[in-house]
This record gives sequence, structure tokens and C-alpha cells, in this order.
Amino acid sequence: MADALKIGVAGLGTVGASLVRIIHERRDSLANSCGRPIEITAVSARTRNRDRGIDLSGMQWYDDPVALAESGDIDVLVELIGGADGPARASVEVALARGLHVVTANKALLAQNGVALAELAEEKGVLLNFEAAVAGGIPVIKAVRESLTGNAMSRVYGIMNGTCNYILTRMEKEGLSFEECLKEAQRLGYAEADPTFDIEGNDTAHKLAILTSLAFGCQISCDDIYLEGISNITLEDIRAASELGYRIKLLGVAQRTETGIEQRVHPTMVPHDTVIAQVDGVTNAVALESDILGDLLMVGPGAGGDATASAVLGDIADIAKSRPGAQTVPALGRPAKSLEPYERARMRSHEGGYFIRMRVVDRIGVIAAIARRMADSQISLESIVQHSTNGGKEAPTKTIILVTHATTELSVRTAIEQIESDGFTVNKPQVIRIEKP
Amino acid sequence: MADALKIGVAGLGTVGASLVRIIHERRDSLANSCGRPIEITAVSARTRNRDRGIDLSGMQWYDDPVALAESGDIDVLVELIGGADGPARASVEVALARGLHVVTANKALLAQNGVALAELAEEKGVLLNFEAAVAGGIPVIKAVRESLTGNAMSRVYGIMNGTCNYILTRMEKEGLSFEECLKEAQRLGYAEADPTFDIEGNDTAHKLAILTSLAFGCQISCDDIYLEGISNITLEDIRAASELGYRIKLLGVAQRTETGIEQRVHPTMVPHDTVIAQVDGVTNAVALESDILGDLLMVGPGAGGDATASAVLGDIADIAKSRPGAQTVPALGRPAKSLEPYERARMRSHEGGYFIRMRVVDRIGVIAAIARRMADSQISLESIVQHSTNGGKEAPTKTIILVTHATTELSVRTAIEQIESDGFTVNKPQVIRIEKP
Repeated sequence: MADALKIGVAGLGTVGASLVRIIHERRDSLANSCGRPIEITAVSARTRNRDRGIDLSGMQWYDDPVALAESGDIDVLVELIGGADGPARASVEVALARGLHVVTANKALLAQNGVALAELAEEKGVLLNFEAAVAGGIPVIKAVRESLTGNAMSRVYGIMNGTCNYILTRMEKEGLSFEECLKEAQRLGYAEADPTFDIEGNDTAHKLAILTSLAFGCQISCDDIYLEGISNITLEDIRAASELGYRIKLLGVAQRTETGIEQRVHPTMVPHDTVIAQVDGVTNAVALESDILGDLLMVGPGAGGDATASAVLGDIADIAKSRPGAQTVPALGRPAKSLEPYERARMRSHEGGYFIRMRVVDRIGVIAAIARRMADSQISLESIVQHSTNGGKEAPTKTIILVTHATTELSVRTAIEQIESDGFTVNKPQVIRIEKP
Repeated sequence: MADALKIGVAGLGTVGASLVRIIHERRDSLANSCGRPIEITAVSARTRNRDRGIDLSGMQWYDDPVALAESGDIDVLVELIGGADGPARASVEVALARGLHVVTANKALLAQNGVALAELAEEKGVLLNFEAAVAGGIPVIKAVRESLTGNAMSRVYGIMNGTCNYILTRMEKEGLSFEECLKEAQRLGYAEADPTFDIEGNDTAHKLAILTSLAFGCQISCDDIYLEGISNITLEDIRAASELGYRIKLLGVAQRTETGIEQRVHPTMVPHDTVIAQVDGVTNAVALESDILGDLLMVGPGAGGDATASAVLGDIADIAKSRPGAQTVPALGRPAKSLEPYERARMRSHEGGYFIRMRVVDRIGVIAAIARRMADSQISLESIVQHSTNGGKEAPTKTIILVTHATTELSVRTAIEQIESDGFTVNKPQVIRIEKP
């Protein structure tokens, strides 16, 4: 049997600890599948004396991941530190420059520096694998990068943040408010103490940026993504959506349009009878639409120590199975130098259906005026629902819900501005885009 | 750029023709992704003078696929002939023996001769890829063989035959009989003139046998699969299932049990609110349950010329990206010699819930007697429904539907034998197993 593949693990958090434990427990079956043993020979973490429930004996210890990358007796650096820059980036750059293979679960690092790192890996003829960086345990990177080779992709979209999907699912199933569900998610460890990054869509955006590059052969452009989180989604939206046959999910969507590539992350209404609408809780789902294969949907765990470690292990196994220097899979599916510049489609030209919920003063002619404004913007309506008038001290108001047929973002924005300027609305209209498979 | 990878295509049916067309149309993007051009240099088919809408100029022609495998100027043989033996098997064996890589979409060949072919491929240090053989365009082979490396799998199941799923979906949505839907499927080309192989479950069994070996590290054992088709599923079953919150799908299921590995193909009731229950029409779905990653579900096109060609192309690309002789991925995930003998779990010891529908004479005490027989077999009932008595000339009868909690196949068979021997039933009771995610 060939020599062992020597692994250095930088970062011993939940994922790192799972990985060390699993590789130790499964050494024989791994060696059998990979044709050679897989051995963790060096590790690095901030604090040495902490009980992680794993046996680190026989492994070189490094306080500094860069030192591990520089001088560790390893073939592969597994980066599980996180962060777009700092020690994560430094250790990966050093490892690649040294001609080591790199496996990382770091979406921020790839979203910001992926193309440069891919170029470096190709120069050195080593692998840069990052299955765990997008949708955790779902092998979507492998699907796009390998299985779909030769396909022209038209759209990639998915539920890529478990925290948001958990919150939206709880809100719908139990009629709880966003705040209550967020607290619950934090209690269960599904959400960080500071949940901003998850609930405002940044985490989804990082993952989407990586997928967009793989799917469309363009450079990664994480800062050009239209971003809208779920924090202003109310129970009223969820109930109205359900009445109309939709469920609300936070989707990341990338699609090729005539004016360029659209990248957007926002709450989205999906038809209730679609498979993706049935994806609940912390589960993730990614849909890939391509011209030869057709539509492919993958559903699975998007986070968690073991699920993420499993994806990292798959990446390590791919390296173990390929002879040193033999592998020519470019990290981003095509040689990094051949990636086209990212051409951004303007959000105003986005086409699709829209759900619009507005609170208006209860006065004769309001609906007629609103309908006229829609018509002025060439928007055709699929349905219009008026909800019961409220009494109370203030002037009586009513809620009007509009669902449009396919139109453009610009038309919708224009119509709403006009309606607001007409003075009928009592608060900012809620607009949710509709995505159909 | 490296030399072109030379492909020989044996079989120019729908899939073969799609493959030739796609490789021609996408030569540049393929060369860019793979780091070398992919070129079809030789083809073989039964009839030469037939318009397939593709350009075969510049390709060596062989009437005999074995001759192509023997003497074609190729690096890879793509076998798209079909059949467990005959020219398909002969050409693949010759190609592997000659040290050529082989890509095949032939499930029957692998289900019957997969282990021997894998051994031969490993001896010669070449790749034997067969993504298209299971669930068409869904990259499930890659997921089990590569992404899940190191995972211990507990269950694999799925909808792997589009014909059956189309028929069951039509029956449910349009209230048509099995026969009407089969005719429709044949008219649309979803079903063969002789549909036996699809509707009796043999096609699903072939695919399941391959997945079982990959998932559990055992030898392929296609003839040990418990088999039940969909031809005796009636509208009455589908309606009753739906009343009880289930949908009926033809599933192939392989799972590890205490007494061995269970492989079964049969109509199955799945809870209505599960993702797999939403998979309609000719679409396929495969669920993989493993201990580290958790549950993974993949949904996509299970058949069709282009979707299948896309999977074949992915296999070819994997070969193009790896240096000759460099690849050490064993065809079945582990060295073929290390595969354990298949240890069959007896069907009678299968555990799960059951749906039982029986027509009985409308006589006082019948239900009590039936309930007693169930109790005698230690079967606890989840629900019992009695359907309206029929009038008519014959003696009045009624339909009784039982849904059991988890029990064993043996208990259910025993109870039903006793009920029949009690002389209450007017025709053979319908038994459908329930599968829960």
C-alpha cells in the first residue's frame, strides 16, 4: 500500500475536532477506500490545553497555523480557522506556495480571495478543495465542478443558510414572531450571539458567490450581490403567502440574463407544491439548472460539525486517491486565468413575479388608484386581496395584497413610489419576489 | 495543452447520438475544463446508413463493438449498447484487458458482472465509470463513491424508474387506471412496447444492486432482491393512501439490518409531507442515509438521451482530468477483492409499518375477528377504516383498511393467512409497505 497521506489540521473547533476523531476511528476503512492510509500528523489551534474530547498524541502541535503550513511534515493543509483574511488566508497561501494540497471549509476566504488562490494552486499543480464551504455536507461543488462538466448552466439557487430556514419554518409552523424564533435558534445553537451575518444574508451571499463562479465560469464577485435579509419578514407575510399557495424561504439565486449575471439573496416566495418548498428547518437545498442534464436538486445538512467534517473528508479522500501532481482539476472548474470577468446584471432589470403587501387608508377609490398605478407601469396582476379593515382610534386602514405576473423590478419600484406619493399608504409597502422552478 | 483524449463510442442510440453531438458542439469549453481536448475517434453501431442527425465524419467505423474495443485508436471505450452479456460485456472486457478506461451506462451489465469488471479494471489500473447506470443524470454514484468516503451507510432508497413514477403520478393526479396511464406512457415514449422490465421492478432492482454494493461495501447481488411491481396498484389504493396522508411510490430500498442487508423493490407508501413524496412524473430521487454526513437527497432526471449523455460526459471528463495510470479510485469504492460477500436479510424479518386493504363479507363480528387475528400476531394498529358497503347482486361486502405500527413481514403474513382461512375475505388482501425517512 502507498505511503500515508499526511494531514495538517489548522483550527480545532467543532468541525476540526470531528475530523480528527473520524479520521482516527475510521483509519482502516479509509485506507481501504483510498488505497493509502490518511494520517493527521500536525495540528494548530489557539489554545493548547483545552479538552476537545480527542486524542492529539503523536501530532506536531503549532500555536500558529502559518508555522504549521510553513514547516509541518504534511502533504495537505486543512484550513478550518475561518475568516476572509488573517491566519486563515496566510496559512493557505503559504501552504499552496509550498506545493501542498489545501482543503478548506472557509466560504469567506474563497468568496473574497478564491480566484487568486485557485491560480496559485494551478501554478503549483496542487488541489484546492472546498466542498464544505458551500451548503455544508451537500456535495454541490463536486456536482457543478465535475458532474456537470460540459453543461451550460442557466440558474443556480438554494436555501444555503440553516439559521434563516429554521427561523422561517418555525414562524410558519408555530405562528411565532421572528424575534421569538431567533431567540429559540440561539438557544439551540443554530444562531450566533450576533446573528446579523446569517439573518441579513451575508453568509448566503458568500456561498452564492462561489457557486456563481463555478456555474457560469466567471470570476467570484461577492460584493456585487443584491442583499436582503429576513429580519423584516412578519407572520402576516407568511400567512398571506400560505393563503396564496406559497412559502417564504431565504434564497440565494444566480442566473444568466441578457444583460449579465444576476446574483441576489432575498426572502423569496416559492410555490407550495415544489420540492424546495418542503425543505424545512436547518436543512439546506441547492438547485442546479443546466442545458444538457436538466434540473438537479440536492437536499441535505448545511451545517454541523460532523456533516461539515464529512465534506472535508471527501475532499481529503479525493487527494489521497490521486497521485501527487497527477490531478489537473482546476479549483474553479476551469483554469482561473480563463474565468471571465463578472458582468453584473442590474437588479432593476430583474424579471419575475412579485408579492406586494401594503397598509392603506380605507377610503373610496384607493384600490382603483392602486390598480391604475400598476397598469401605468405595465404590471399585470395575478391576484389582488383586500384584508379586513381595522377599527381602533386611528383612521381606519386596510391591508391590500397584490401578486403580479412576471414584470420587472423597475416597474414594481416605480409603481410603488407613485402609490406612496399618492398618499394612500400608511407604512412602507412590503415587497417579496416570487421564484418559480 | 495535453494530447486529446480519444473516445470510442459503442452504440449510437439516443444516448450515443446525444453524446456525439454534445462533444462536437462543446469541444472548446470541454478542452478548457478538462485541460485537454476530448475527441471521438471511433464509433460502432449495428446499422451504418441511418440518419442520426450527427456528423460521424473523421471517425473510424466499426460494425462490431468488440473490434472497436480491440483495435480502435482510443483511450476510452464508452459502452452504450446495453444488456448484461453479449457484445456489451465482450467489448468492455476486451477494452479493460487492453488497458483502456471504460465508461458505461449499462446497469444490467454492472448488476450481473460488476465485481469481475471492477477487479479487471483495478488490475489494469484503469477507470471503470458508470454514473449514468443509476438514476440517469443524478450524480449519485459519485456521491456514494467519493463524497461519502468514510461514512457508514445505514439505508439507501429511491425512486429509480421514471416509467413507474410517471404512471403512479398520473393515476393519482388524474384518477386514471394503471392500464390507461401505461398506454399514455407508451404513447409518450416513457415506456417500452413491452413494459414488463420497468413496471415489474427489474430495472429498479439492477440500479439498487449497484448502489447497495457501493453503499455497504458488499458484492453486487442482483438476484437476491425482493421484487414487487406496480401493476396491481389500483386507484382504490392510491385514494386510500392519500386519505391516510401517504403517496404511493415504487421504491428500491437497501438497508443494513441485524440479520444482514435487506434489498427490496416494491410499491411503498411514503408520508405526504416528505420531500421524496413530492417527486412526480419521470423524475428520479435517491436518498442516502449515512452516519457522519446525515441524510442526503438528490432529485433529477433519471432518463432521457441528453441527461444520460451528461452523466456519461462527466465520467469522461473525470478520466480526461486524471493522468493516465494516475487514478486509483476503485470502481466500487473499495478494491473489488475487499468487498464482503452479500449477506441477505430475509424478507420475513423486515420491520416496518403496513397498509392492508381487504374486501370482506359484510357480516357481524368480522372486524372483531380481524382485529383479534392482528392482536394474535402482536400487530398494533395505527388506524382502521371501514369503507361503505356495496349493494349489488352478490352478497354484500365491505372494504376494510388497516394501517399498522412497526411490525414484521412475518407477523403480517401470518395474520393475513389466518384472516383468509377464517373465510371472511372475498379476494386477495392488498398489502403495501410503509417507508419513513
